[in-house]
Amino acid sequence: MNSQPTSHPRRRLLAGSGAALAAAGLGGLAPAARAAGDTPAAAAGTKPLPGYVAWKDPASVIVHSTTTIETRRGSFGTGVLTPSEQLYIRNNLPAPDASVVADRDAWEVEIAGVKNPRRLSVRELKSMGLETLAMVLQCSGNGRGYFPSKPSGTPWQVGAAGCVMWSGVPVRWVADALGGVAGGMAFMTGTGGEKLPEGLDPKTVIVERSVPVAAMADAMLAWEMNGAPIPLAHGGPLRLIVPGYTGVNNIKYVKRLAFTAAETDARIMSHGYRLSPPGGKGDPSQPSVQEMSVKSWINGPGADGGTVKAGLVQVHGVAFGGLHGVSRVEVSLDGGKRWHEARFVGPDLGRYAWRQFVLSAQLPPGAHVLASRATDSAGNVQPEQRAENAGGYNNTSWADHALKVVAA
Amino acid sequence: MNSQPTSHPRRRLLAGSGAALAAAGLGGLAPAARAAGDTPAAAAGTKPLPGYVAWKDPASVIVHSTTTIETRRGSFGTGVLTPSEQLYIRNNLPAPDASVVADRDAWEVEIAGVKNPRRLSVRELKSMGLETLAMVLQCSGNGRGYFPSKPSGTPWQVGAAGCVMWSGVPVRWVADALGGVAGGMAFMTGTGGEKLPEGLDPKTVIVERSVPVAAMADAMLAWEMNGAPIPLAHGGPLRLIVPGYTGVNNIKYVKRLAFTAAETDARIMSHGYRLSPPGGKGDPSQPSVQEMSVKSWINGPGADGGTVKAGLVQVHGVAFGGLHGVSRVEVSLDGGKRWHEARFVGPDLGRYAWRQFVLSAQLPPGAHVLASRATDSAGNVQPEQRAENAGGYNNTSWADHALKVVAA
Repeated sequence: MNSQPTSHPRRRLLAGSGAALAAAGLGGLAPAARAAGDTPAAAAGTKPLPGYVAWKDPASVIVHSTTTIETRRGSFGTGVLTPSEQLYIRNNLPAPDASVVADRDAWEVEIAGVKNPRRLSVRELKSMGLETLAMVLQCSGNGRGYFPSKPSGTPWQVGAAGCVMWSGVPVRWVADALGGVAGGMAFMTGTGGEKLPEGLDPKTVIVERSVPVAAMADAMLAWEMNGAPIPLAHGGPLRLIVPGYTGVNNIKYVKRLAFTAAETDARIMSHGYRLSPPGGKGDPSQPSVQEMSVKSWINGPGADGGTVKAGLVQVHGVAFGGLHGVSRVEVSLDGGKRWHEARFVGPDLGRYAWRQFVLSAQLPPGAHVLASRATDSAGNVQPEQRAENAGGYNNTSWADHALKVVAA
Repeated sequence: MNSQPTSHPRRRLLAGSGAALAAAGLGGLAPAARAAGDTPAAAAGTKPLPGYVAWKDPASVIVHSTTTIETRRGSFGTGVLTPSEQLYIRNNLPAPDASVVADRDAWEVEIAGVKNPRRLSVRELKSMGLETLAMVLQCSGNGRGYFPSKPSGTPWQVGAAGCVMWSGVPVRWVADALGGVAGGMAFMTGTGGEKLPEGLDPKTVIVERSVPVAAMADAMLAWEMNGAPIPLAHGGPLRLIVPGYTGVNNIKYVKRLAFTAAETDARIMSHGYRLSPPGGKGDPSQPSVQEMSVKSWINGPGADGGTVKAGLVQVHGVAFGGLHGVSRVEVSLDGGKRWHEARFVGPDLGRYAWRQFVLSAQLPPGAHVLASRATDSAGNVQPEQRAENAGGYNNTSWADHALKVVAA
């Protein structure tokens, strides 16, 4: 135990200050350590990180509330996968007690709607198979902040999304091992294991979502995220992963996975996440927010502060196709008048992942509006305009996501 | 500022205790936050994390000393990339003062041995191009701990290695922009920017390494690691990345990149990292430890503690080819008597990355010796035996890396 730190006075000072603040009991907020990079630990204009995600990188995120935290546009890196410490948080209910990750392998999920229904522990699931899957995880309301109508809900800009690597067992292998899906089942319904608030009808608060049974083809019961056990805040010990579908369908702390004849009647399904006309409210007659569609945005240069050095720049961002892969990205330097073909950078992690794109360009001094427009492998083109809806869902407008910068 | 943490008493208690300990000034060791997972923060039998890497995951690493930290075999995930908070540390000299990462873009590197030599800032490099590269970063001495001769140096087992995504500008683009490499230059020589200890001949301590100039083809000047600015401990603001070559050739805090007619005469090159016969010492007449060769090992099940549940198991691990891609992995459940073809899992990140492999197998109760043997795309097969050498370098023996487990 003779280990001594080497001389990094500034680093130690920061750590020490943070620790002292926390020890002083400031609101129970734990000091956040920098998981990567060494920029100043406190970003201006954001609330402090809540204790349960104190391990997030405070300089990379915007804290809207204790359960809604987004990645800063200028903090998205170019390494394809979003580091866990930068990944957004959007939890409909508080996480279960941390005791559930003290013995991760003991967590159980009930598998129903198969020939031989049964409960399976994470330990058993791990023995049944191993696959990995890179996938864009995106909140249904990502981009809501660009709706001029200011819908209620978190005003996310681009940062309620990330590209994440999951490890687990494919749902179809589990279903096969239990005799296959029972007849007549049109949906796959996942139920979250959050502790429900007392005194309320469980149906009104439980996180339970149904997706078409076809989505099971690429779905997974996952225990790892980005090469490490899934943090409690992101749904560990076990999360249902439904690639191509919005975040809410990827059930955290999944305690039940059922193949069902009908959609669940839980309120989060019947009334929540519905595409209602502006001014309206969600109800079961309206389309559900489910599959994602083609989208892209620019992350730099100039996403932090909007000023860039005039001259040669590398305009870069991310693009994804939702259920399809992304096949093409164009970039405009003048708000959409002229478009230039961007180049993809780095490895292709499969059709559910996003891809990095880059355009080398000369930016003369002055103001510029940088925009990107993606096309998926089915030929769908990212639209100029958002589709108006009361909840501020599914904003894929390239115009809304354009980045205003000043070159000097 | 009304942000309040949700109820996670255990998590908050842990954070609070750590903070209190740090505030009490226990040896300057900062509390380490968990960047992923929520298992107990202190792993048995390891020293505490030094302050400059307090953001590492203490449960995932073995701290040999303040400058030598390895990933636990059982902590390697299956998500292809190694999370930064699990990645090993091996620094020949202490890092420069953290002030160098306060303004990352201002860091400068001198480019020499080109037609038009000049200094370039990170800001300028970022304007010149963007590429990403996934690469196995491995210490030359990884596996030294399996040498029965107990060579001096850190007794690494498998964990002085990781697969890392780098973002930066290709060296060849930089050289081209400066008129190309000057005539007669046979080597690419990188110099680290560590502050050198006073009173010593710089040549005896400076981190300066030469690789054949051909290695520039895929080399990169990188500012991001795993999608975030390179942490100081890993060589940020700027690191020279030479894929396929052992860790020491990937110069941290690179301050000079020169194309040279001869290898540097710095001691770390002339006498360090040489393949000397057992009992001998390094000198310039002996082969340098440079290119990596084909290697694999099993990371589970049973890497933590050696006991597994009898029955169906998923034997998994990593395999890489060094300068070539890996094309095949076989797994043995009986110490190498019979071999079974393993399946690759997950995306292929290119020839310098490692791949995850898995074999589904039945393990009856009893003791088993699990081994893996990789073949690269050039047909090189991972050998059974290590090549003995005084420094304990380049251990690729599949027998040494076999995993003993007991199924019950």
